[in-house]
Amino acid sequence: MALNTSYGWSGWARRENCFAPAITVPIQKAARLLTKADVVFRDSLVSDEILGLVNRDAEVIDVGKRCGRKLLTQEEINSLLVSAASKHEVVLRLKGGDPLVFGRAGEEIEALRNAKVEFEIVPGITAALGAAAAAGISLTDRRAASQIVISTFSRGTEGASMDWGAITSTTTLALYMPGPDYAEVAHRLREGGLPDDLPCVIVSNATGPEQQIRWTNLAKLASEEKLPAPALMIVGRVASQKVQEISKAFWRNEANDRTMPRSAVVS
Amino acid sequence: MALNTSYGWSGWARRENCFAPAITVPIQKAARLLTKADVVFRDSLVSDEILGLVNRDAEVIDVGKRCGRKLLTQEEINSLLVSAASKHEVVLRLKGGDPLVFGRAGEEIEALRNAKVEFEIVPGITAALGAAAAAGISLTDRRAASQIVISTFSRGTEGASMDWGAITSTTTLALYMPGPDYAEVAHRLREGGLPDDLPCVIVSNATGPEQQIRWTNLAKLASEEKLPAPALMIVGRVASQKVQEISKAFWRNEANDRTMPRSAVVS
Repeated sequence: MALNTSYGWSGWARRENCFAPAITVPIQKAARLLTKADVVFRDSLVSDEILGLVNRDAEVIDVGKRCGRKLLTQEEINSLLVSAASKHEVVLRLKGGDPLVFGRAGEEIEALRNAKVEFEIVPGITAALGAAAAAGISLTDRRAASQIVISTFSRGTEGASMDWGAITSTTTLALYMPGPDYAEVAHRLREGGLPDDLPCVIVSNATGPEQQIRWTNLAKLASEEKLPAPALMIVGRVASQKVQEISKAFWRNEANDRTMPRSAVVS
Repeated sequence: MALNTSYGWSGWARRENCFAPAITVPIQKAARLLTKADVVFRDSLVSDEILGLVNRDAEVIDVGKRCGRKLLTQEEINSLLVSAASKHEVVLRLKGGDPLVFGRAGEEIEALRNAKVEFEIVPGITAALGAAAAAGISLTDRRAASQIVISTFSRGTEGASMDWGAITSTTTLALYMPGPDYAEVAHRLREGGLPDDLPCVIVSNATGPEQQIRWTNLAKLASEEKLPAPALMIVGRVASQKVQEISKAFWRNEANDRTMPRSAVVS
């Protein structure tokens, strides 16, 4: 059964009594590719359950990181992909999350194009959406947010660093890979002009059996107990269990002005 | 078969000769809920193929928009959801894309919480990721981008308007629902400080059989032929078929400075 829809599927359902609160995101096409693949190049974040679907004759090659150390350079991975494509019928590059968000897909896509290898990309559930679903946060709640910024601290050493011009009072920030030093994260966020009382939620192992959700704010963040990776922070007025109260203040402010004052939260 | 993974599934596969270039995103849990649901509240963007999975005894209620006109107010939808939850075992709210991105889920979540209805959220593939996969664009290509801004023009009348402080030289902008007036979109983007030669790609009906992809830039955008809705624009240096060339210039600029000059693209 192959389904085809432009914008995917999503929804929420009333929780059933005997139903675990885990979000399951197998994709049938993906499952089919897993059963057909001759070679699978996998990252570290791919779960054992997904790997269990790979057909037994397939060669599974781990090209991910272990404790932050890469097994292979990006150039080596690119070469392996191109080489495999010339030898095998179905080559699968398997990444956690969505491959086009902090996934190094850009360089791999380019290597394949340069080598004239045809390919297609299957989108996935990126961490921000998994974490938001776990916490029940509407990232663009129209009463408190008008946009989402998806960013990370972790790229400073190898790419461009985060640009704080991006964070405004109506922005929801999804901060990928915040790392274990919450004091440093809090410092950088506050240094960037975000107010102390801005809500922040940390979601660790979103949707998995070891999921943890911590509701806090920037002032308290530094002293929060560390949650295990993979984790993600959602920062902004929507990241509160009291969006209703926050949004009441918002509507009061804009009673005579439909545009959101930029200075309302960020000074 | 229920799979459970924190960060979803994604990947790309070598295209098979007889394989349609459509991205299929059924979610097995979603499929199970569709077959079990007593009532389904659906939006307009849900495809017929997905609706075909709903069990025949279920009541399917369309609460979406038609030609921009709402069938029901948000308050009426909230009331219907709460009411249905008190009468039925499995109530499903079915939205296109991801429910937490421009999906009004915030108000529905709040109504359910206030009514003490338990629920869970299944994340979906948001339009930006579907469009990026269709066009083969890495939204965070580390050679040209450090963050993604997900925004829209269409909320100005009922919520906060877009804040142009968000757009920097290393930002990839995913602009939802750009509307048919490309001249106006181009005007507003350029007025916001974005340069004329900034690449822009319009993806219409991403991943569906009528998918169209138009590669352009801000200077040419105003005169581009309109593509049918649903459409999405990806604006930024990654939105080019020549990221390689663009990134070469980028690396040259920062040969002596690993941080990205904000003024490199946006003046």
